[in-house]
Amino acid sequence: MARTSNARQLLVETAARLFQTRGFHGTGLSLILEESGAPKGSFYHHFPGGKDELAVAAMQWSSLEIEEFIDTAFKDAKSFSIGARALGKRLADWFESSRFSEGCPVASVLLETAPASEPLRKEALAVFDLWIEALEGHARNLGHPKPRQTAEGLMMGLEGAWLLARARHSRKPFDIAVSTALAA
Amino acid sequence: MARTSNARQLLVETAARLFQTRGFHGTGLSLILEESGAPKGSFYHHFPGGKDELAVAAMQWSSLEIEEFIDTAFKDAKSFSIGARALGKRLADWFESSRFSEGCPVASVLLETAPASEPLRKEALAVFDLWIEALEGHARNLGHPKPRQTAEGLMMGLEGAWLLARARHSRKPFDIAVSTALAA
Repeated sequence: MARTSNARQLLVETAARLFQTRGFHGTGLSLILEESGAPKGSFYHHFPGGKDELAVAAMQWSSLEIEEFIDTAFKDAKSFSIGARALGKRLADWFESSRFSEGCPVASVLLETAPASEPLRKEALAVFDLWIEALEGHARNLGHPKPRQTAEGLMMGLEGAWLLARARHSRKPFDIAVSTALAA
Repeated sequence: MARTSNARQLLVETAARLFQTRGFHGTGLSLILEESGAPKGSFYHHFPGGKDELAVAAMQWSSLEIEEFIDTAFKDAKSFSIGARALGKRLADWFESSRFSEGCPVASVLLETAPASEPLRKEALAVFDLWIEALEGHARNLGHPKPRQTAEGLMMGLEGAWLLARARHSRKPFDIAVSTALAA
């Protein structure tokens, strides 16, 4: 059982990283199998719905990773500003350590598959909502006067930062996005 | 000559729209030829560098379209806020009229091809810089105290809005992104 579940998790993590770097359509199933070392039979055993089903699992897994980023950044924060700056720094650190190559785990899948695939769009929406609600919760707990709007503004700014940072090979866009959302 | 140049332009506009809707790798050359009605020979005549060269031309063309959006929105604006709100409205109108399917003409190409293709990354960067500089120019002319930071914050927010709006099938994210950047 353990081996089976490891194979599944390895497929999910490999796919998540490849989608972040090369996009959904740019990542062939053969590459996912090669990089994860999973046999084809194992893939179809765990994901009878094929690559789309794997993409949903990959988004769910990455989503929890980002949610943990958010919660860690805000864990000891004495104000929303401090937590938001820590989050921006963590995302920038992560992105820089991938040499500016691993983008948002949801963006490229969404941009490549909506409107053709409703399940993938709905999963992307669920992930965005999860992040926004996590940010909103921290904003509310820390007494921010406009928790919902600030959470949405920060999330959108960070998504834009991920794009601009990728084009520029720079971590600075994350700082600017956080500053913009905090000053609002 | 006119016919030749029309064929080139038709290829560029068709590719731009398809990349916006289906992403770079999700748009096969055969679909571009089918939708544009251009013969294969014409494609390789105009784009000897293949699909990558067409993608650069498509980004350049779309880029001018957005720049015109920006300049039109700010043309008679008496303040940066008025211009930015008009821009957000125009982008939301455009996106809504495509039934929330035509995203940023640069984002998906960038996310799918960087870091593998340096020419495409550089073109995406040139386009982002062009938009930021256009916004910065209007901010400066209209007496905004922080023209550069506001222009970058607004651009990133609008990119994030394009993503969230696509997941939500809603035009509201554009309003929130503009409000966030204006309040900063």
